[in-house]
Amino acid sequence: MKALIDVTLKESILDPQGAAVKEGLLKLGYHVEGVRIGKHIEVELKDMDIMEAEGIIKDMCEKLLINPVIETYTFRFEV
Amino acid sequence: MKALIDVTLKESILDPQGAAVKEGLLKLGYHVEGVRIGKHIEVELKDMDIMEAEGIIKDMCEKLLINPVIETYTFRFEV
Repeated sequence: MKALIDVTLKESILDPQGAAVKEGLLKLGYHVEGVRIGKHIEVELKDMDIMEAEGIIKDMCEKLLINPVIETYTFRFEV
Repeated sequence: MKALIDVTLKESILDPQGAAVKEGLLKLGYHVEGVRIGKHIEVELKDMDIMEAEGIIKDMCEKLLINPVIETYTFRFEV
């Protein structure tokens, strides 16, 4: 089974990368109201119970994959 | 409405970042079979018809947001 984790900067944190991409899109003529850039992490796990997998992914995120001071994350599973 | 775009390296492309994170997780005692790291892009659009929004997001991805030679992408909407 595969965990799909999306890590984004907290709203209060400035996102220069997102601002630069927004500028680029506006110059190409797209009407966008905002752009934020983060990390997408895919973790392949052996098949297990979803509740168990959720616990492991939360633990991994908080211990290694994200910086809780400036980042927030969501995840879902692809079974 | 918000488009959530996940950009990953194509399977055939080496992912040193993913390999390093996998090593780190294994050292912390997690049993992972693979890790791949990509970009997560959130684009805020004014409300519009989903079909229209899909066309715009595909266009944005192919023109600016991804490198089609080495990357692939998926997207979904948060309404």
